[in-house]
Amino acid sequence: MAEVAARRRSRSGGGAARRAERSAVTIETARYIERNIPDFEVLTEEALEIIETNAETVLEEIGVNFVNTPAALERWRAAGADVQGERVRIPRGLARKLAATAPARFTQHARNPAKSVEIGGRNLVLAPVYGPPFVRDAEGGRRYATIEDFRTFVKLGQMSKWLHHSGGTICEPTDIPVNKRHYDMLLAHMTLSDKPFMGAVTEPSRAQDSVDMAGILFGPDFVRDNTVMTSLININSPLTFDETMMGALEVYAANNQACIISPFIVGGAMAPVSVAGTLTQVLAEVLAGVAYSQLIRPGAPVIFGAFVTSIDMNSGAPTFGTPEASQITYGAGQLARRLGLPYRSAGSFCGSKLPDAQAAYETANSLNMGLLSGVNFMLHACGWLEGGLVASFEKFVMDADQLGALHKMAEGVSCDANAQAMDAIREVGPGGHYLGCAHTQANFKQAFWRSELLDYKPFETWSEEGGRDTVLLAQARMRKLLDSYQAPHLDPGIHEALTSYVAQRKAAMSDSFT
Amino acid sequence: MAEVAARRRSRSGGGAARRAERSAVTIETARYIERNIPDFEVLTEEALEIIETNAETVLEEIGVNFVNTPAALERWRAAGADVQGERVRIPRGLARKLAATAPARFTQHARNPAKSVEIGGRNLVLAPVYGPPFVRDAEGGRRYATIEDFRTFVKLGQMSKWLHHSGGTICEPTDIPVNKRHYDMLLAHMTLSDKPFMGAVTEPSRAQDSVDMAGILFGPDFVRDNTVMTSLININSPLTFDETMMGALEVYAANNQACIISPFIVGGAMAPVSVAGTLTQVLAEVLAGVAYSQLIRPGAPVIFGAFVTSIDMNSGAPTFGTPEASQITYGAGQLARRLGLPYRSAGSFCGSKLPDAQAAYETANSLNMGLLSGVNFMLHACGWLEGGLVASFEKFVMDADQLGALHKMAEGVSCDANAQAMDAIREVGPGGHYLGCAHTQANFKQAFWRSELLDYKPFETWSEEGGRDTVLLAQARMRKLLDSYQAPHLDPGIHEALTSYVAQRKAAMSDSFT
Repeated sequence: MAEVAARRRSRSGGGAARRAERSAVTIETARYIERNIPDFEVLTEEALEIIETNAETVLEEIGVNFVNTPAALERWRAAGADVQGERVRIPRGLARKLAATAPARFTQHARNPAKSVEIGGRNLVLAPVYGPPFVRDAEGGRRYATIEDFRTFVKLGQMSKWLHHSGGTICEPTDIPVNKRHYDMLLAHMTLSDKPFMGAVTEPSRAQDSVDMAGILFGPDFVRDNTVMTSLININSPLTFDETMMGALEVYAANNQACIISPFIVGGAMAPVSVAGTLTQVLAEVLAGVAYSQLIRPGAPVIFGAFVTSIDMNSGAPTFGTPEASQITYGAGQLARRLGLPYRSAGSFCGSKLPDAQAAYETANSLNMGLLSGVNFMLHACGWLEGGLVASFEKFVMDADQLGALHKMAEGVSCDANAQAMDAIREVGPGGHYLGCAHTQANFKQAFWRSELLDYKPFETWSEEGGRDTVLLAQARMRKLLDSYQAPHLDPGIHEALTSYVAQRKAAMSDSFT
Repeated sequence: MAEVAARRRSRSGGGAARRAERSAVTIETARYIERNIPDFEVLTEEALEIIETNAETVLEEIGVNFVNTPAALERWRAAGADVQGERVRIPRGLARKLAATAPARFTQHARNPAKSVEIGGRNLVLAPVYGPPFVRDAEGGRRYATIEDFRTFVKLGQMSKWLHHSGGTICEPTDIPVNKRHYDMLLAHMTLSDKPFMGAVTEPSRAQDSVDMAGILFGPDFVRDNTVMTSLININSPLTFDETMMGALEVYAANNQACIISPFIVGGAMAPVSVAGTLTQVLAEVLAGVAYSQLIRPGAPVIFGAFVTSIDMNSGAPTFGTPEASQITYGAGQLARRLGLPYRSAGSFCGSKLPDAQAAYETANSLNMGLLSGVNFMLHACGWLEGGLVASFEKFVMDADQLGALHKMAEGVSCDANAQAMDAIREVGPGGHYLGCAHTQANFKQAFWRSELLDYKPFETWSEEGGRDTVLLAQARMRKLLDSYQAPHLDPGIHEALTSYVAQRKAAMSDSFT
């Protein structure tokens, strides 16, 4: 990251340089997490085998629907499935066999090569919240999101050390027509950030636009041979694949771009109320979706997704950070590893309307569970509020700070001679203290994770400074990050080509808000 | 618990009954957690062996100090240790051999037998915060704690379904002289709650008072044969045992009452900055303390304790809910299990001054880690604020609510025919929904943990109800619980005997505030 910092300094004008000095924010992106800790596994071997057997039974006897997708039905028929109307029944073992060509891990390239990510294996890549139509900040409250909000989030993501990925629809820019939003969102990711990003999935043509714009950014040859986007393909649980999502999947898979194939489960509504039943359905859905991606292009990179919440059976409202969702997430991780696929789940999930204690309990439950369940790609890792209806600016930086703790936890425990610290224990002895000893002096800078946000000060100091709660601390940090933001260098010719492409495409279509 | 509820109804007067009806709070205590999930283990076998070997080296070569405890030094000498001044060097293997007589699990009896707890094995017993000199509530802010505050906490604990234990010094009743506080605290636990509790440790005579009062409550014969208190013996890390704590330990161990033998570690100050080094010191300290307890009375019940925080190396302030503390807690759990001892660690730890998002992130990190690290006795499981300086009323009920999620998580995943839910998946099929299906109807009441506190309502409803944050929701819940509180039945003769004992003892001594 030294290179990035140096470039930034050289490009700063006098005012900006002074501002940067004052705020003392460093632009640094941590490498994606490489876990050196075990996975937490809630399912026994016997339970895993039951679920895998049942998932095959679901595919064979119940089947899945591919809705309004005649070409997909034809592909399934040719592959050996029993197709009746839109129902696709997949003989036992076929989906698993087809899925076997999907890679266990892949590189998603960023335009800054230092920020490319390896998705799969023991790694964890963190990306921001995706999809909220609203935003909230401490000052203005809750309101519909705009493209300016979107750009602000991209900038915050670029400035967040522990976030490896710029994400996709961080919030819905509702002030832009629906059929044009993806242009502005992609342009923001491509120009305001140099981290990897996601493509559009709301129509096959928009997926193609994403591939075309990536071609301008990376060069078409590079995109032909490399994965530069990871996009989100939701399954309409239970057991239904629609033409929009399948159309987008087809574009991405054909172009060797990655897709997350992800059941969208509110337990009790879109899946059984039981953990084992939900896992059975999740596995059947993912197997069918992954198998289909490999019918499009064997070897196309895909991720085993599981978006899971439970439901409050009294009100019907979704709930987040709950133990049932954790159990499903742990279990799905085991199933994904047995399939040899990268795994996407967890996030900064919460049901709270405010970035308060409820939000933080729910989020911390989910983030911890995400780390320990072996997630490889965590969408929604920061900024999620109110069941995903709202992207919160303050919560974005609050959660992003907590992501640093996940990095440290994932390092595991060293037991080398320095870590054993026997010299320190001898030096200090009974009744002494370690603050000044040689071992502490040599190690303290790297020893402990340190929040850039949370308040550890004594009560008196904290009171004198205004007795701020976490939201106010986050507001201050957000402003500091945005004040220090500088766009990463981009070749002016590429910038111009992207802008022109977007302008031309938008000019050629009328506005649509549906 | 049906019995408890029925007794309560029959004892309610008209007004109280109506009030109880309106508030719809049930007085119910969950059984202690019996884990049906694995432990999360960060240390390899090799790392464990290194740490165990190093701990023996510490005991043999560096030793521990037993300060102002001539009798203890004599016992150590007789047991085969090398005693020089106050330094006790324990030959390799001796402490472990002595510790072997400590039981792997024990029953702590409550005066309500339905609320007795089994400490050890796969169980987890939850007890409230211990020790803060201050309290905080949303209305009055932060102030010195009083005995009335203490009683309020005992009542809240009694009313908290997921709390199994009434605890000890939930807050310091600073309006009572130091030498008399334990009487009022014990009287509150014994009369206002029927859950198990802790004894005084601030002087050997106060430990003896605790045993004597327990004798009045349970009958002296019962106390002679059974464990009715679990008390907190802190080690003055590094490697120092003082006369106050050892004196209290001696009283309890001699009376077959349980002690938590617990290093008090702020990493970087009282222990090395490294995880492996800290674990080495923790193990050495616990081995020495447990061995000493068994010199007093072989078979006396003890718990392997580990209170661990890290330090902010810039300000020197302790930090909570950090990844290093988690790694140490996971590792200490492994060491405790290998020793065959019950394990105490984790809690609702946080550094925040307010029960805000910071507090909740930190607390959730610690609670989750406590569940997965195999903790058997979790002190501080609710109500901790500001690094333990403050007991928060609102956070008490907020944390106590989250403890419900731990219960559900610990149940693990069933894979029986009902949980497999294949009939439900067949019934609903692709594109359907599960809300009305037979399996959902039959299972939804037990399917999901449900918070009694958090808000899952739609934004509009939540706004109409005042747009309350978690603190205000907790304030309302706290009032509801206190409004519904009824003292559990206690034989009037015993109540009178306890009150008289306290009055007589207090009358016989002058006030001391140190």
